[in-house]
Amino acid sequence: MRATIIHGERDVRVEDVPDPVLATGPEASGRDAIVRVVAACVCGSDLWPYRGVRPTEEPRRIGHEFVGVVEEVGAAVRTMQPGDFVIAPFVISCGECINCVNGITTSCLHGGGWGSEGEEGFADAGQGERVRVPLADGTLVVVPGTPAAELIPSLLALSDVMPTGHHAAVSGGVREGSTVAVVGDGAVGLSAVLAAKRLGASRIVAMSRHEDRQRLARELGATDVVPERGDEGVERLHAMFDGIGPDVVLECVGTEESMDQALRSARPGGQVGFVGVPAGGPELPIRQLFSTNVGVRGGVAPVRTYIDELLAEVLDGSLDPGRVFDMEVPLDDVAEAYRAMDERRAIKVIVRP
Amino acid sequence: MRATIIHGERDVRVEDVPDPVLATGPEASGRDAIVRVVAACVCGSDLWPYRGVRPTEEPRRIGHEFVGVVEEVGAAVRTMQPGDFVIAPFVISCGECINCVNGITTSCLHGGGWGSEGEEGFADAGQGERVRVPLADGTLVVVPGTPAAELIPSLLALSDVMPTGHHAAVSGGVREGSTVAVVGDGAVGLSAVLAAKRLGASRIVAMSRHEDRQRLARELGATDVVPERGDEGVERLHAMFDGIGPDVVLECVGTEESMDQALRSARPGGQVGFVGVPAGGPELPIRQLFSTNVGVRGGVAPVRTYIDELLAEVLDGSLDPGRVFDMEVPLDDVAEAYRAMDERRAIKVIVRP
Repeated sequence: MRATIIHGERDVRVEDVPDPVLATGPEASGRDAIVRVVAACVCGSDLWPYRGVRPTEEPRRIGHEFVGVVEEVGAAVRTMQPGDFVIAPFVISCGECINCVNGITTSCLHGGGWGSEGEEGFADAGQGERVRVPLADGTLVVVPGTPAAELIPSLLALSDVMPTGHHAAVSGGVREGSTVAVVGDGAVGLSAVLAAKRLGASRIVAMSRHEDRQRLARELGATDVVPERGDEGVERLHAMFDGIGPDVVLECVGTEESMDQALRSARPGGQVGFVGVPAGGPELPIRQLFSTNVGVRGGVAPVRTYIDELLAEVLDGSLDPGRVFDMEVPLDDVAEAYRAMDERRAIKVIVRP
Repeated sequence: MRATIIHGERDVRVEDVPDPVLATGPEASGRDAIVRVVAACVCGSDLWPYRGVRPTEEPRRIGHEFVGVVEEVGAAVRTMQPGDFVIAPFVISCGECINCVNGITTSCLHGGGWGSEGEEGFADAGQGERVRVPLADGTLVVVPGTPAAELIPSLLALSDVMPTGHHAAVSGGVREGSTVAVVGDGAVGLSAVLAAKRLGASRIVAMSRHEDRQRLARELGATDVVPERGDEGVERLHAMFDGIGPDVVLECVGTEESMDQALRSARPGGQVGFVGVPAGGPELPIRQLFSTNVGVRGGVAPVRTYIDELLAEVLDGSLDPGRVFDMEVPLDDVAEAYRAMDERRAIKVIVRP
């Protein structure tokens, strides 16, 4: 089959790789499934190795967001059968260990990542034609029936960006009436705007200096747009909210500057919900947190835990997280998807095998 | 009058200072009160300057926890009158600004600290015979009636340690059924045990290696005691809670070691509630927080916000936070109070003018 391999900085290629097969033999648990990928996408975090910020030691599979149709299941798989449409969260999880039971599926004691070897063998990455999914019952979410084609982008968004934006909002403690600022206007930041709106925020400020993203942010629920950053951004936010800042700031970037801005923007006693993958730091200034009582909570989003709740709303048409996709390419053109996101020509790109 | 002055490392003295008087003149707001101190105490944070960790640039008044009787009030004071018994939180607050309305009285836009000049003039420190209290309505809490002598320690504990332990527990998200570990066996750590118990924690581990404090911790609600620290302490806690650690860790020390231990002890998705005054750091490791989804929240406790709720239980006899006091000295012997706490001969010392 064909699958995407990253070779190094700005070098992703689609190549022939072995077809995935169910594990066999006496040690096979029978808990795996083979999924034909219907749609995958490129994540902002895929750009770190693409840009060389995180070096690629040797060529490896890439892609951790996909939806598809189950083709085969192992003997022990209970919750799905061939033909089922499934959403794959960006982390593999067993669904049974204490961390999964606690809802922190990203800390699953038996799980792992796409495109790598794990406790139950190799899992293909998402940007390819097919994927062997270990721990299929714990990992995959079955979508009832056969979803309409126009629902695919929103279902795909449930594999990462929408639940990640939701995790930022939940971690930030957004509730009915909260005032919220969102740092970051990528797909996750825009999803966080949507998530904050969904949780009842009364005012949502999108921090963005790109006109198309500002417009989309407003369509997704932002009540205000602030293009300023750094000190000026902090001052603008303070001025907008009683001179002290909003209740909650959602940090959806992961740089030192964005976290600093988030921490200084939240009001005393407020909270920063963060999901930006920390790109080399920074460490958090404890004395500042101590004196302001601003809390910090977040991290790698336990997407699997959130999908059921969000899926119901996608299926009844009340939630449309697929709007963050603004470009689509066939699998063979995956390099163009990376380029478009790297150059910020696209917010998020669907890749169709 | 007599009041405590810190001159430098291990040098506190009781000296004659001017009697406090209500502000007069055309610029006086009339919002101050004069309080005769009935009982004060020494805080763990007073030991930082006492030990020279924070240098004392010039002699200054010290003490920020006291209860007493109102002797005089300014013309604009509405909620108290001479003869009223009052509790003074460790920070002065107006009760009317946006941060006070939000309950973060420690970030009051007009408040300040004891023993220093503020927007509304000088406020005496607590370890003395009398105190001029600016912004009396916002700052002081009136205790109804005339409290019995045996209630004084528990009322005094409401000026700082009990609400601070409560703030740790609230910031850590302790609720019915939570599993909790408390790092620190000083008066605040012990108060945090009591606070966690009060909020319904199902299991509370006191981290302590001192037999008398272990015993008191158990009496206040600890179900387990762990004397180990560092890596061994973390391992013990993990082993006690499904191999992953408790839901919540309350950090009540403020050193790099204690915060590190707290962060590594909490389960994935857990929370660290912290109130230990950060002694020079550390900064928080963002990648560790990101990968574990452990949240961090806390800081300088907005005591004023919590007193009403806790006072009701002290008055009806269901809450006895005064048990953390294990020594009492007259004001003239305040130096002995500092020595006893510095040498950990005493947990917390009442000072009686």
